[in-house]
Amino acid sequence: MRIKLRLDYDGTAYHGFQIQENANTIQAELEKAIWKAGGGNVRIDGAGRTDAGVHAWEQVAAFTSDTRIPGERWAQILNYYLPQDIHIQESSEIPETFHPRFSPHTKTYLYQIYQGNKGKSIYQRYACCIKFQLDETVMQRACKDLVGEHDFRAFCATRSSVKQYVRKVIQCELVKEDDWIRLFIQANGFLYNMVRIIAGTLIDVGRGRLPEDVFQKMLQTGKRSLGGKTAPPQGLALYRIQYEDEEKIVDNEPMKNYTN
Amino acid sequence: MRIKLRLDYDGTAYHGFQIQENANTIQAELEKAIWKAGGGNVRIDGAGRTDAGVHAWEQVAAFTSDTRIPGERWAQILNYYLPQDIHIQESSEIPETFHPRFSPHTKTYLYQIYQGNKGKSIYQRYACCIKFQLDETVMQRACKDLVGEHDFRAFCATRSSVKQYVRKVIQCELVKEDDWIRLFIQANGFLYNMVRIIAGTLIDVGRGRLPEDVFQKMLQTGKRSLGGKTAPPQGLALYRIQYEDEEKIVDNEPMKNYTN
Repeated sequence: MRIKLRLDYDGTAYHGFQIQENANTIQAELEKAIWKAGGGNVRIDGAGRTDAGVHAWEQVAAFTSDTRIPGERWAQILNYYLPQDIHIQESSEIPETFHPRFSPHTKTYLYQIYQGNKGKSIYQRYACCIKFQLDETVMQRACKDLVGEHDFRAFCATRSSVKQYVRKVIQCELVKEDDWIRLFIQANGFLYNMVRIIAGTLIDVGRGRLPEDVFQKMLQTGKRSLGGKTAPPQGLALYRIQYEDEEKIVDNEPMKNYTN
Repeated sequence: MRIKLRLDYDGTAYHGFQIQENANTIQAELEKAIWKAGGGNVRIDGAGRTDAGVHAWEQVAAFTSDTRIPGERWAQILNYYLPQDIHIQESSEIPETFHPRFSPHTKTYLYQIYQGNKGKSIYQRYACCIKFQLDETVMQRACKDLVGEHDFRAFCATRSSVKQYVRKVIQCELVKEDDWIRLFIQANGFLYNMVRIIAGTLIDVGRGRLPEDVFQKMLQTGKRSLGGKTAPPQGLALYRIQYEDEEKIVDNEPMKNYTN
């Protein structure tokens, strides 16, 4: 029996999603909880491997177990065994062929920037807090250059060893609300550190340190060095995962309710 | 020289504001930071003594020090020495007679309730997460009975030993937004656990377990037992402090931006 989970987590206390020796990870907590629930010693797969300190408003994971616990019951049982900073939203039985990472899907990441003063002690956990004001209109214009199918090798941590740098960015939107700037980026796949490099570069565009067409230049030349710093992990969150075979969510659905 | 601080903090890791032996508190962290900054061994006073796990979007504190550091410089210096979950918004020099707790002021507390499913792992730190839906219209009506000068002895933890139970509630508003219900309550003073008792009772009103006029009855009889449970601390935050001698903030200012 294959079980699919939708979950969210606060990544602050974890060394990322993926299991590692001698480190606390989301995957390890999930596998421990499944074991405690009587699901046996399973390997759980996730749709995205978030890094240390990165959060998820929505992550999808799946595992195979031969227990007779009905699919929809797993959410409640696992929430009982999981720590409070990991929360299963729903669980369901799914065909054996489903794999969170390899089944075709798009991911949306959210990167949050906070330019305010009040509440920083709380927001610093979920946002990149900055002391200067950004020009979001210029940033919004810059974002447009990322949409489409491109070779994103300039948007990839140099230590990464992938072979294929082409990704399709479906949406890249910047939403300003009060002291917040939120970047939503949806693509068919992401390179290592891609969103954090985009966010860091956008911050430099917004404060006038990099030109509005910097993304164009990075795409054309493939040079990482033209961009800004990699923005810090705590501002990043996996925001939504949509599988091809799922009921289509209307594309222009307002991206409300992203945080609070 | 007397210095006034406006600050915010994430109360999760602390045993409340007030200094205690062998416990990590906001006051202790502030006094340690002042000492490290060269301000000497001072006693710092706060406007409100928040409990363990309770947050502050705005708290006011003051101390007296004979160093020559200008008032407005303290914010930056203290932020350097403070942990990330305590943040000084601003600092200024203030007359010797100012005392955060005894100088006349009103406080506004915020209590957050989250009725949604997505993002609970993050929101549980700052909200009371519930699994049922509340009828906020009934709750809004119930709130009205609290406004005014009343004897609030029914809204006080039984172990409390104050002598005077009369307080004046200036505003008590319930704001619903998506899956959130936020209670804002402004008064000239609060009894111990008062807001958490109000919030816990309101939750029971919203789910139909207590009548709409429960606050009226509590005020008339003085009986704590007529109300609901004391709601958990993590949903509570000190939200705003206004001193009489400060520039008057327009009363009907929209209570926006309270979280995010």
